[in-house]
Amino acid sequence: MTTSKAERSGGGSPITPRGADFPRWYQDVVSHAEMAENGPVRGTMVIRPWGYGIWELLQSALDERIKATGASNAYFPMLIPEAYLRREAEHVEGFSPELAVVTHGGGRDLDEPLVIRPTSETIINSFFSKWVQSHRDLPLLINQWANVVRWELRPRLFLRTTEFLWQEGHTVHASEEDAQGFALHVLEHVYRETMESVAAIPVLTGQKTDKERFAGAVRTWTCEGMMGDAKALQLGTSHELGQNFARAFDIRFSNEEGELAYGWQTSWGVSTRLIGGLIMVHGDDFGLRLPPLLAPVQVVVMMVRDDAGVRSAAETLAEDLRREGWRVRLDDRTDLGFGRRSVDWEIKGVPIRLEVGPRDLSEGRATLVQRHRRSKEPVPLPGVVEAVRRALGSVAEELRAEALSFREAHSTDVDTLAEAVEVGQTGFARVPWKLVGPEGEEELARQGLTVRCLHGRDGSLSVDASAPLVAEVGRTY
Amino acid sequence: MTTSKAERSGGGSPITPRGADFPRWYQDVVSHAEMAENGPVRGTMVIRPWGYGIWELLQSALDERIKATGASNAYFPMLIPEAYLRREAEHVEGFSPELAVVTHGGGRDLDEPLVIRPTSETIINSFFSKWVQSHRDLPLLINQWANVVRWELRPRLFLRTTEFLWQEGHTVHASEEDAQGFALHVLEHVYRETMESVAAIPVLTGQKTDKERFAGAVRTWTCEGMMGDAKALQLGTSHELGQNFARAFDIRFSNEEGELAYGWQTSWGVSTRLIGGLIMVHGDDFGLRLPPLLAPVQVVVMMVRDDAGVRSAAETLAEDLRREGWRVRLDDRTDLGFGRRSVDWEIKGVPIRLEVGPRDLSEGRATLVQRHRRSKEPVPLPGVVEAVRRALGSVAEELRAEALSFREAHSTDVDTLAEAVEVGQTGFARVPWKLVGPEGEEELARQGLTVRCLHGRDGSLSVDASAPLVAEVGRTY
Repeated sequence: MTTSKAERSGGGSPITPRGADFPRWYQDVVSHAEMAENGPVRGTMVIRPWGYGIWELLQSALDERIKATGASNAYFPMLIPEAYLRREAEHVEGFSPELAVVTHGGGRDLDEPLVIRPTSETIINSFFSKWVQSHRDLPLLINQWANVVRWELRPRLFLRTTEFLWQEGHTVHASEEDAQGFALHVLEHVYRETMESVAAIPVLTGQKTDKERFAGAVRTWTCEGMMGDAKALQLGTSHELGQNFARAFDIRFSNEEGELAYGWQTSWGVSTRLIGGLIMVHGDDFGLRLPPLLAPVQVVVMMVRDDAGVRSAAETLAEDLRREGWRVRLDDRTDLGFGRRSVDWEIKGVPIRLEVGPRDLSEGRATLVQRHRRSKEPVPLPGVVEAVRRALGSVAEELRAEALSFREAHSTDVDTLAEAVEVGQTGFARVPWKLVGPEGEEELARQGLTVRCLHGRDGSLSVDASAPLVAEVGRTY
Repeated sequence: MTTSKAERSGGGSPITPRGADFPRWYQDVVSHAEMAENGPVRGTMVIRPWGYGIWELLQSALDERIKATGASNAYFPMLIPEAYLRREAEHVEGFSPELAVVTHGGGRDLDEPLVIRPTSETIINSFFSKWVQSHRDLPLLINQWANVVRWELRPRLFLRTTEFLWQEGHTVHASEEDAQGFALHVLEHVYRETMESVAAIPVLTGQKTDKERFAGAVRTWTCEGMMGDAKALQLGTSHELGQNFARAFDIRFSNEEGELAYGWQTSWGVSTRLIGGLIMVHGDDFGLRLPPLLAPVQVVVMMVRDDAGVRSAAETLAEDLRREGWRVRLDDRTDLGFGRRSVDWEIKGVPIRLEVGPRDLSEGRATLVQRHRRSKEPVPLPGVVEAVRRALGSVAEELRAEALSFREAHSTDVDTLAEAVEVGQTGFARVPWKLVGPEGEEELARQGLTVRCLHGRDGSLSVDASAPLVAEVGRTY
């Protein structure tokens, strides 16, 4: 880890207060925590080691759960013949304006332009049509970790970038029920579980309205989080594709009766955008706050000064903590000011700092600082491992509880569209969907609002769009 | 796993004998082991779950060793302004003919064409120039896992594809010695170690001649393997970049004396091509043979027939084996012929098959089949875990020894260029480099031969090109 020049040259907090200017605060955190910066091509992003370290932990949490569904990872080409995209009418209409097109390769103009995948339904389904022959081949469950490109006119680091990293799952099932069950299983057991138990972000789940549905899907399910400015962020989606792509790409199988039938499909994805959500849900005026499962460094042992006693005690502590399986960093950069280094780790959101200095040591203790509460407590040296275990154990739960109570404080049940328009400006308005409908949705759009998702009054998922659903209305990223 | 149609429909071995037609044999293994197939755009490749599972294991072995060097992962944009490539003259000359160019994005023609990274020196070094300010920032050690595109006119799955997956490391050091030491450390402790201990592929290491050097490097170090047809395959390279890119991208730091100095750099990469090497080194007439550390399934427990006794015994065995931490698959597809399924797992190279059938069971045993030797032995049920442990424990060592003795049998010390030309047609010729030189290299090229690497007579690495080095001469992929 290197210290940025601004931090090294001294001065107060380099971060704009969250309440003063939320978008500016966000940029400051991303920059000063050294998570990412803009690439040379508009909308592209360099993910620096701290940001990428978080992504690796998220990937591994998601990947484990994806594999537990029975899906296997694979990799499909990034370059797709333009004609493939045209095979599903709604799909090409949705993605055309965002495409990057390769017209030149290997020193000559290409006969047919190639698009860089904006998502891989078309190319993957062209292979599924070869691989799926019999009901024995189903369900076919494939996941891909990849980069995709969607031209972005108003980019923001992590949230909307021209190139981003994601996973995209693609499946084929023998029946509509199986496909729907799988789409919902991913939503609940891969996405919601990772977001809530790993990222400590409480999410609302529900289906998208027709207006917000994925281009080519029959039904889109979504996880929506409320950010620290009470705006919504779509964190992950799981689509029922019906037989739309199966028909466009001729994915047919012989069923148990020996008849040819089109497959039923799903697709689902989560991207580096989730890191943006993590920042905006948990960050505070002092920077990022990381739940321990997503912290590249969980505990930093800071030498206050470099003398033999301090070094030896700090190294011993670091070793003891590593032995417990935690990700530990020893910060012995005593040529840099202690305050500067503390601010650095605070901005980066490391959950626990252990300060080891001569005065503490002479009293047989270290100082334990919890980032999320900004609390400090002296801990006797023999009790450090236990104190760290206790502290680490409660971070995620407390962050999640805080985010949840913020969301609840900014969510209101309303009975009219007019009220939804008003309340939606400063939080989520929950309004009966029958009072909104497609026309009401247009009205909301004119006011800068969208329907984030539809679900039962108790938050439950419902497939039936004619059931008494409520719409979660709010501003969004 | 699904069974390919050819296999399901019966018939003999679907694989061309290795000795009859090596390239055809290779294609057959890739295809029938369901590792990869051609994408719709010439030269692109779909990596299917079996191939990708091997890649995931390779990635994790490499990544662990890369992180042990102190390097951190990060991610840089795939789209690079064309002008960046022109900054290092030799680099752009080397890569220009292979570039894919994006000229259209977001619905309009771009003002400046963008290239899809063929490698990331240019874009990464443009950021290093911002990040490196002081000797405190050094060494800067970054690695990236990514896809790259190099237009390929004569593609072959895994070996040469227009798009491939790889890792590329990029570092900056304060001195030439540090940079060289790091390049060699990666060569030996990341690459050679992974190739030899994980992939069981013996490699020769040495430096490339000027002719074969990476475009923009001062010196290229390489790991070269001998394939089953006695041709060479370059499996990984580590480059000393000197100050070439530091000058082109203005990467300067204030040294301990407070003076500005250009950084010294390295870059190094290993790609999905290594999977091609794995196939060509270990494969036999019956398909792939996998060392256990790279086997997505290490042990398959095969139910010969579906009855209650067989199922219960097979499930118990599978559970016992999983408890040891091995990757185990239970094959209960008894509606498919047992022979077909065995051939399937054999082609895929699964190291151990455990056959569980009623006759074996009645005698209290199972049959253990070792793929790499094609040996079968009965094992009493209570001894299965130990027998599997013993069998798994010797596979890699035996595969490596076999490959090494093949290489030795196809390597000859010679004393003249003429002899090198002759011997190089059927193996590696080791000839004193002073007898070859740049002119001899041209002569070799006319005979379809290349100098794979230069090293000491005992195989040791030597920086000094005027030392009495020997050239390893052979045909190559």
